[in-house]
Amino acid sequence: MERIEKRVQDSRTTMTEMIMPNDTNPIHNLMGGNLLRWMDIAAGVCAGKHCESYVVTVSVDSVSFEKPIPLGDVITIECSVTRAFNTSVEVFVEVFSSDIKGKNTRKCNDAYFTFVGVDDNKRPIKIPAVLPLTQEEENRYESAQKRRELRLIMSGRIEPNEAHNLKKLFAK
Amino acid sequence: MERIEKRVQDSRTTMTEMIMPNDTNPIHNLMGGNLLRWMDIAAGVCAGKHCESYVVTVSVDSVSFEKPIPLGDVITIECSVTRAFNTSVEVFVEVFSSDIKGKNTRKCNDAYFTFVGVDDNKRPIKIPAVLPLTQEEENRYESAQKRRELRLIMSGRIEPNEAHNLKKLFAK
Amino acid sequence: MERIEKRVQDSRTTMTEMIMPNDTNPIHNLMGGNLLRWMDIAAGVCAGKHCESYVVTVSVDSVSFEKPIPLGDVITIECSVTRAFNTSVEVFVEVFSSDIKGKNTRKCNDAYFTFVGVDDNKRPIKIPAVLPLTQEEENRYESAQKRRELRLIMSGRIEPNEAHNLKKLFAK
Amino acid sequence: MERIEKRVQDSRTTMTEMIMPNDTNPIHNLMGGNLLRWMDIAAGVCAGKHCESYVVTVSVDSVSFEKPIPLGDVITIECSVTRAFNTSVEVFVEVFSSDIKGKNTRKCNDAYFTFVGVDDNKRPIKIPAVLPLTQEEENRYESAQKRRELRLIMSGRIEPNEAHNLKKLFAK
Amino acid sequence: MERIEKRVQDSRTTMTEMIMPNDTNPIHNLMGGNLLRWMDIAAGVCAGKHCESYVVTVSVDSVSFEKPIPLGDVITIECSVTRAFNTSVEVFVEVFSSDIKGKNTRKCNDAYFTFVGVDDNKRPIKIPAVLPLTQEEENRYESAQKRRELRLIMSGRIEPNEAHNLKKLFAK
Amino acid sequence: MERIEKRVQDSRTTMTEMIMPNDTNPIHNLMGGNLLRWMDIAAGVCAGKHCESYVVTVSVDSVSFEKPIPLGDVITIECSVTRAFNTSVEVFVEVFSSDIKGKNTRKCNDAYFTFVGVDDNKRPIKIPAVLPLTQEEENRYESAQKRRELRLIMSGRIEPNEAHNLKKLFAK
Repeated sequence: MERIEKRVQDSRTTMTEMIMPNDTNPIHNLMGGNLLRWMDIAAGVCAGKHCESYVVTVSVDSVSFEKPIPLGDVITIECSVTRAFNTSVEVFVEVFSSDIKGKNTRKCNDAYFTFVGVDDNKRPIKIPAVLPLTQEEENRYESAQKRRELRLIMSGRIEPNEAHNLKKLFAK
Repeated sequence: MERIEKRVQDSRTTMTEMIMPNDTNPIHNLMGGNLLRWMDIAAGVCAGKHCESYVVTVSVDSVSFEKPIPLGDVITIECSVTRAFNTSVEVFVEVFSSDIKGKNTRKCNDAYFTFVGVDDNKRPIKIPAVLPLTQEEENRYESAQKRRELRLIMSGRIEPNEAHNLKKLFAK
Repeated sequence: MERIEKRVQDSRTTMTEMIMPNDTNPIHNLMGGNLLRWMDIAAGVCAGKHCESYVVTVSVDSVSFEKPIPLGDVITIECSVTRAFNTSVEVFVEVFSSDIKGKNTRKCNDAYFTFVGVDDNKRPIKIPAVLPLTQEEENRYESAQKRRELRLIMSGRIEPNEAHNLKKLFAK
Repeated sequence: MERIEKRVQDSRTTMTEMIMPNDTNPIHNLMGGNLLRWMDIAAGVCAGKHCESYVVTVSVDSVSFEKPIPLGDVITIECSVTRAFNTSVEVFVEVFSSDIKGKNTRKCNDAYFTFVGVDDNKRPIKIPAVLPLTQEEENRYESAQKRRELRLIMSGRIEPNEAHNLKKLFAK
Repeated sequence: MERIEKRVQDSRTTMTEMIMPNDTNPIHNLMGGNLLRWMDIAAGVCAGKHCESYVVTVSVDSVSFEKPIPLGDVITIECSVTRAFNTSVEVFVEVFSSDIKGKNTRKCNDAYFTFVGVDDNKRPIKIPAVLPLTQEEENRYESAQKRRELRLIMSGRIEPNEAHNLKKLFAK
Repeated sequence: MERIEKRVQDSRTTMTEMIMPNDTNPIHNLMGGNLLRWMDIAAGVCAGKHCESYVVTVSVDSVSFEKPIPLGDVITIECSVTRAFNTSVEVFVEVFSSDIKGKNTRKCNDAYFTFVGVDDNKRPIKIPAVLPLTQEEENRYESAQKRRELRLIMSGRIEPNEAHNLKKLFAK
């Protein structure tokens, strides 16, 4: 049976949130953990659209928080799938922030979340492949393999020297 | 001084929310009041981008809730400005819903919210005009006058027979 | 079979809420959408008592927000049924606000919400009639017909010239 | 200077809440702690109206939870002041519950909360006296003295044998 | 059948919470009701571990709030069982607070909560006994009898003169 | 000036949370994003105690979610500092879960969060060193250097071949 292919744009998801008082730390900036929570929800909606099933988060790659996002700012979270493996799909998440007047828009951070599609009995299912169309989609599709190897090392499922794509990176 | 004109697309805003248990009534559908709350936040972000200022909600036109939205569904709220008056701007809000698998997308309802742009001392300010470009944007721009008259009648600020645009409607 | 009649006072409902930080916008006043949410909950409880069933919100008439309600204020929401149609009931909602010291009480706004009574299978049911007793209850009972026509026009279910009560209003 | 006297009805406060999923424990009944939180807010609003100042909770007397309140029930919290001491006022709180259809109304529990009125610098202030008018108000006014003694013993501020009113109770 | 005995340390529970804006009153201190809610959750987790069953709160003894806890402070709630009766267990709850820098740690208050262990049909079940090991655990175990008598008087289930342990206290 | 050294146990932090309905996804397990949010709060409290200052999250290393955590479970989050660099400190976070009856305790996942200590003007400050005492503390202290290099690569601040500790890992 041929595997279904779906385009990136078929599941692209945008979320908008305003930073409320309870989302901030005592110095009045968005707490990192709240941003992670919103990124997970937005990415999960995106993965669900791609998989056409329930999804569960299996991992988030390292995330760094560079610029503080103050109370009252508006953040926009853009999610798109990059590549599907057998039962899992990687989602690229980008976060932008503007002040309440729609000014000073800037990129805050990005991250890769991975989800597994599951059926009603919570068992993993086969999911559609991702069909990259633009150059950028192609690049993310290709590099997904390296990120996957890194995740397998980080969670102890493969040894560093089994990670063929990563080895090249450090061999320079 | 010439008044600034801004395009509809410059402030278009999309919000995505997943229906969580606490958003539902005892028969497990989204409560109308929660949807109104999200529509107000999304429309306020859109109005803020257009006005480039703080905004406060001054009215919401009548809203009807036709189809129940069950727990676990994902709603998408699309907002765009239709027309700006002196200090106020009308925002058109459309709500779509899909199930968690991204299927059964349907329009749930729509509404018009009106906001006033205010400065840091909470006083109304002059805001940019809306420049309609597509036929649909043109239509909403034109009909905004009638909705404004209806609002003024409803809030008792003008008499029905002063509402020239509305009178024609009932005079058939 | 005779239809049951219930008095307005049998389902009157009062709700009190204190404005907390997360209920406010960045200029520290209650967000319109949060007030709509509370009004819907309070009106729904009132409609449920009248219908003696589950209820779902079917519409809210236009609402205007005239006076800002600051952080720390206490709002009181008073709800009473005005008239029941076959399966739906209209609820009149009034909002009052005082400062934390119980001073400066003022009316903030009012609105009409409409609910349908449903059974355990979510199907509309026949609901009791409203028996108006005071002059004020009588007035709201009478004018409910006009508001209903307006709602039917607004939602495109009848043509303006079919709205006999409303036509008189504009025919002056 | 004469001390101002205020009637009980001048600050009577009613709060209505619907039991939402997040308010319940894993066996689907309202968690005791959530009820205590709502009682404190309602009683605080009532105390604030009486004192015409900010108030802070200083104690809650023992509370027992006899009947479970299931998900979807509507609770009504009635608060009235009983007696004011120099800078503190005692509030009597009663909780009633009905099902979503407005049926099976029953008293759930009651409790006494004590608040101190404070000025803008958070220092205790003199507050108005309570003027009891009905027999019930009179009874609660009288017994407030005993409850106060018990609180002073419980918090270790007086010795049991200094509690003249309570001693009589145990001396039978 | 011999009754199982469990040690205090087997169910000891620690909860940490940061005071967020929505937890505070308008003078920026933690609201008493929010603290009661957290104490109930923490104590319920502790009781559940001891009973190895679902638990429901049946009472909280009088609580006093002596020191205000400001926004941004971190509170630590320590819970340990003191004594189990037939189907109920008493939990001692202590609350400590520090500022965000981990300084100025101080005890805020303490309280006794009582829970009943229930089975899946919500019926009370026999629960393990508490085995006190330290002198402090022994003291709390012994005094639990007096607190229980006081609760029975407060809830009107026994007469003051039936409370043998308490009588001694007042007889001095 | 000598740098202050603080022990790991001086800032160890434990947080307990019960999984409530709103924390779960539509298949009734804890959403990954909510767990990340709690881990960030707990780790931030721990970092604040070590730094004796405000802290802001600068990164979280990759996290994987292996076992689903169902509604009603109780999770315990244990945090301890591993090593402090000039202005930043790494916190090791472990998550354990048990069912409501305190049974089936299992480790769910772990992660490394990094925080920067800041002063009241939000500028980075020098923070105390970590003094490892046990073998396990020693091991985490040593490996912190490698994790730091990986973070610098991941965020593009150093080239892979500058990461001396990591290179050895892949050179096998």
